[in-house]
Amino acid sequence: MPVITIDLGTMANKEKKGELVQALTEAASTVTQIPAEKFIVFIKEMDRDNIGVGGKLLSDTIK
Amino acid sequence: MPVITIDLGTMANKEKKGELVQALTEAASTVTQIPAEKFIVFIKEMDRDNIGVGGKLLSDTIK
Amino acid sequence: MPVITIDLGTMANKEKKGELVQALTEAASTVTQIPAEKFIVFIKEMDRDNIGVGGKLLSDTIK
Amino acid sequence: MPVITIDLGTMANKEKKGELVQALTEAASTVTQIPAEKFIVFIKEMDRDNIGVGGKLLSDTIK
Amino acid sequence: MPVITIDLGTMANKEKKGELVQALTEAASTVTQIPAEKFIVFIKEMDRDNIGVGGKLLSDTIK
Amino acid sequence: MPVITIDLGTMANKEKKGELVQALTEAASTVTQIPAEKFIVFIKEMDRDNIGVGGKLLSDTIK
Repeated sequence: MPVITIDLGTMANKEKKGELVQALTEAASTVTQIPAEKFIVFIKEMDRDNIGVGGKLLSDTIK
Repeated sequence: MPVITIDLGTMANKEKKGELVQALTEAASTVTQIPAEKFIVFIKEMDRDNIGVGGKLLSDTIK
Repeated sequence: MPVITIDLGTMANKEKKGELVQALTEAASTVTQIPAEKFIVFIKEMDRDNIGVGGKLLSDTIK
Repeated sequence: MPVITIDLGTMANKEKKGELVQALTEAASTVTQIPAEKFIVFIKEMDRDNIGVGGKLLSDTIK
Repeated sequence: MPVITIDLGTMANKEKKGELVQALTEAASTVTQIPAEKFIVFIKEMDRDNIGVGGKLLSDTIK
Repeated sequence: MPVITIDLGTMANKEKKGELVQALTEAASTVTQIPAEKFIVFIKEMDRDNIGVGGKLLSDTIK
């Protein structure tokens, strides 16, 4: 039942997403002792135009 | 003012989204006695590559 | 796997929360044809001091 | 570290998003006295087919 | 209808929360040209034990 | 800048929260190659009365 949501910029490919889901699930399952199959992970990708850090768009600060 | 957010895979079409918004709003309004017009619903669709269940991508487990 | 989150003010009691969870799950399951047991619901209660509508705190507008 | 997330319909252009990120960051920094560079802003745009108000899709109520 | 959510540590008092709700609403309304009364703000306070920055708990890094 | 949010039941103690923040940060940093110090983690604990699985409250299904 625990739900892990990660908000970040766009990811490279499906393979990396698979690795991320697995790594986050294993990390949380190990610490909480909640079985891995109970975990849900949402990868919420955003365009750099939609992310602000320190008041500036990420697309203006990372070239 | 209550906000209902549903995170799920991609939905079939606009008609189904309309039904979902109506059904969730009516269900919550009936139980909470808060008038239906106060409710906001966000349908957050995600690709199956962006959803993990039990450490695996949904796109790898549901064909 | 779908996750329904409802953000609202504090609720009356556990019984009402049970009704809300059941009603939201049934509503969404019926429309999406996804089995009820796949659904997770999070009830996120907030104090009226922590909710703003139209620029004012709910605790200042609802007596 | 504070994270501001704004859920809304699709925005006009990148320039407006830059203004929104700056305005939200400055507003929150001024009130909380937390330095602006600590703030993260996520602009979560949604299609009007994915937003419900009062039980109806926004795409059906706003022409 | 736009919903602004701010996730941060515990705030000082109700008065500051009122200022924050007003400031965020005005900032977003001015930029988007959406009337202020349409905006909802959620202030999601968290204990420093529940916030991690750079892999460490905020309660261990800020004395 | 990436933000990891974990929604789950109440956790045992601060020490476990520290382990969880560290484990999630390291897991995500390793896969994404984004430096650990850029990551924010929010632990969102909820009472079992506020969590529904399969239409039932967790407090009614887990004794």
